[in-house]
Amino acid sequence: MDLGIDRQALVPVVQQIVSAVAQWIRKSGAGPGTRLPSIRQLALDNLLSQSSVIEAYERMVAQGLLASRQGSGFVVAQPPVSHESQWYEGAERAWGAFVDNPLGELKLGCGWLPDAWRESDDISYAIREVTRTDTAGLFNYSTPLGLRTLREQLLKRLTQLHIPAGLDRILTTGGASHAQDLLIRTLLKPGDCVVVEAPGYGNLYRQLAGQGVTLLQVPRTRGGPDIPALEALLQHHRPKCLFINSLYHNPTGTSLCRAVAERLLELAQRENFLIIEEDVLGDLQPASCTRLSALPHDDRVIYVASFSKTLSSALRVGYVSASTAIITQLANLKTLTGFGTSRFAEAVVATLLANGTYRKWVQRLRKRLGTEMAATLQVLEDEEWEVFAVPTGGMFVWTRPGTATSVRLQACARRLGVLLSPGALFSPCGEHSDWLRINVAYAADPRALALFRELGPARSTSTILKTTSM
Amino acid sequence: MDLGIDRQALVPVVQQIVSAVAQWIRKSGAGPGTRLPSIRQLALDNLLSQSSVIEAYERMVAQGLLASRQGSGFVVAQPPVSHESQWYEGAERAWGAFVDNPLGELKLGCGWLPDAWRESDDISYAIREVTRTDTAGLFNYSTPLGLRTLREQLLKRLTQLHIPAGLDRILTTGGASHAQDLLIRTLLKPGDCVVVEAPGYGNLYRQLAGQGVTLLQVPRTRGGPDIPALEALLQHHRPKCLFINSLYHNPTGTSLCRAVAERLLELAQRENFLIIEEDVLGDLQPASCTRLSALPHDDRVIYVASFSKTLSSALRVGYVSASTAIITQLANLKTLTGFGTSRFAEAVVATLLANGTYRKWVQRLRKRLGTEMAATLQVLEDEEWEVFAVPTGGMFVWTRPGTATSVRLQACARRLGVLLSPGALFSPCGEHSDWLRINVAYAADPRALALFRELGPARSTSTILKTTSM
Repeated sequence: MDLGIDRQALVPVVQQIVSAVAQWIRKSGAGPGTRLPSIRQLALDNLLSQSSVIEAYERMVAQGLLASRQGSGFVVAQPPVSHESQWYEGAERAWGAFVDNPLGELKLGCGWLPDAWRESDDISYAIREVTRTDTAGLFNYSTPLGLRTLREQLLKRLTQLHIPAGLDRILTTGGASHAQDLLIRTLLKPGDCVVVEAPGYGNLYRQLAGQGVTLLQVPRTRGGPDIPALEALLQHHRPKCLFINSLYHNPTGTSLCRAVAERLLELAQRENFLIIEEDVLGDLQPASCTRLSALPHDDRVIYVASFSKTLSSALRVGYVSASTAIITQLANLKTLTGFGTSRFAEAVVATLLANGTYRKWVQRLRKRLGTEMAATLQVLEDEEWEVFAVPTGGMFVWTRPGTATSVRLQACARRLGVLLSPGALFSPCGEHSDWLRINVAYAADPRALALFRELGPARSTSTILKTTSM
Repeated sequence: MDLGIDRQALVPVVQQIVSAVAQWIRKSGAGPGTRLPSIRQLALDNLLSQSSVIEAYERMVAQGLLASRQGSGFVVAQPPVSHESQWYEGAERAWGAFVDNPLGELKLGCGWLPDAWRESDDISYAIREVTRTDTAGLFNYSTPLGLRTLREQLLKRLTQLHIPAGLDRILTTGGASHAQDLLIRTLLKPGDCVVVEAPGYGNLYRQLAGQGVTLLQVPRTRGGPDIPALEALLQHHRPKCLFINSLYHNPTGTSLCRAVAERLLELAQRENFLIIEEDVLGDLQPASCTRLSALPHDDRVIYVASFSKTLSSALRVGYVSASTAIITQLANLKTLTGFGTSRFAEAVVATLLANGTYRKWVQRLRKRLGTEMAATLQVLEDEEWEVFAVPTGGMFVWTRPGTATSVRLQACARRLGVLLSPGALFSPCGEHSDWLRINVAYAADPRALALFRELGPARSTSTILKTTSM
């Protein structure tokens, strides 16, 4: 393939390669899966360095024009239908792989715990109890706000966390995403704008975009949202809400610090916006933590939590705490759009909360995650991976290999049988990113250790040749 | 209270009473709960017949201006905040009463089976099996389309019903209302118009209204939607969808006949609209039935069903069958808005379908409902209640007392401890109606029999005096 590179042109050589290859794909009508010339061949044909060709191919992978296939080098990628559907496809593929995992790959980028870590004796006991003693729990609908016995237990927990609550200020949901969906539909309309943290939880971004809401991004720092950036945004925008994940933030693992929290509440008061605080890993709290919901806030902060990350993702139980006025609206929508949540699942969770086994379970879980977190951070340091911030708890580390490129990372992960969550899934616009979310519960596995090691700085030159010249 | 009635005026006396009382409430600033003069007193003061005063008060109750309180006669009602919130309040109250039922009242108007009718041995066995053998079922998320083992069972069922399906044409949901919510959000946008049957399922009307969709009403006849009325509508409107409950229609109990079904499909083809066919009682089918989904339809008919009415309302398992294109969109939205359905519940239902106990259970249920249906129809005939149409199956009869008024009916039900579903809940606009939905599973109870008897024609005069002169 003659690319017609002009070494005298102002356009950089790599950019010329990208343009020429893209033009060749368009003109030749090469369909998805069509194999491209090898890096070595293209470099030889055009008197280029292999590193220029590698960089060009990698850019085209990042742009979605090429895909790298193990054993076939680079091929023409599936044409992007639209940004949105591309994102969905990526997210669906990631989720599908994590859930089904037919090849038994290591779910290093997974958002939840390994099944083997869960506590099956306690939950089995609670299920047996409900099945044996609670006919309504087996057969009947729940109530609009959710099962009272569960809300009573949730009220106790919220009170312990100094979050003002009440039985009519709590609504159960089918997990945190369901809670966010109810909130978005109730509080926001198309054309509204909201503030989100970036990086952040991709599913939430898409939920907001689906409602026609404009996303204003504020960088997530080690201590919470970047306050100067938020203040700058507020000079030109009037957001209705700010969405925040205060503790053990997904994906960065960072937690809100007190000074940022207080400033956020001042700004919310002054600019009159609501704050939706998601706390799905909050039960893993080791010591005192800063939650906006627990500071004085005049019903301006709405609290969202879930049992999916700790107890079980299969039961679908989460909840919201807010003013009674908002809870009433949410309850109406919940009834209308699903006729309530699962009474059975709610009865099971209520049993585990009431008999104290849930509390003991999260204590054990916290300890185990703490051990794995420390070990993972040590390995990452040894292998000179960059860590965004050292988390004080939770299950996520946000990290990137010192020098390895995205293509090399993907190739290495594929070869080792490791499933990753690409950084693009945590960007409001699906932008490419070389950061990765690592779940420490999977990070002690030899496959993960091999990945960290292979992409450490010392092995970069030899590995890059091996993977890209195939 | 002097109402200033003018007997020479063209305005009927009853209307004058209504206007004068309404004016008195406004001018006096009488708040909710303020007691009105008794019927006897108001009649005496104004030289009116008691029956004129009764009629006026009843109209004002129907308009939401007055409420009748046992032991306190008539009082000023809570001011209606808005039509929508009034409806919600009524529906929430009805649902809350049916679910919680703290006084142990008879749920004669309830939309589901008594807990005592359900099959607890089979479901307990399935729950134990999943708990004991399926770690992923206990802890993990389901897959975007829903658990494969469940979809395989659903595919078998759909094939038996001659509904074209496939594993990628089935999506599990958290019940039929959740399925409708996903469909409405995916297929419709504000300003679209759709055809609904009237009377029909109130929750569906509110779901559609919540999306900003205009409802075009077609009367439900014994054989399905009124075809001439639909044809007249189609001369002026271009609906995107028609929502239908073909079998054992809620609330009328009627089923679609073949000729109407064929005409509907012709019209859908000609006018290019989709049909959403809800079949939540379809498993109670005794013999051959007409379903639009089972007739040739070029992917124009979407099928919605659920296990809430037969197996368990507590598990929240339903499903949709449609073209793969629509299923893909629905699956994206389902993931986005709730991160999938309960894998545990899906595994339990799959077990019951696979081991054949569900099939045997619905056979027994069908038989038992058939017996109760026949007995209920006999009682209603004996007591001269009007029946909209004799149902061929299911659990609902749509009926009204021969002569009793709405106020009398409510008073009698309250006295006997019977919970009803007022006809207004089944009207697209929440209009008053004297029809009632009776669930035959509760109709053999002595309290129901007493209600049917008391509101039969022979006892009307004595009872009306007793309840309204309190």
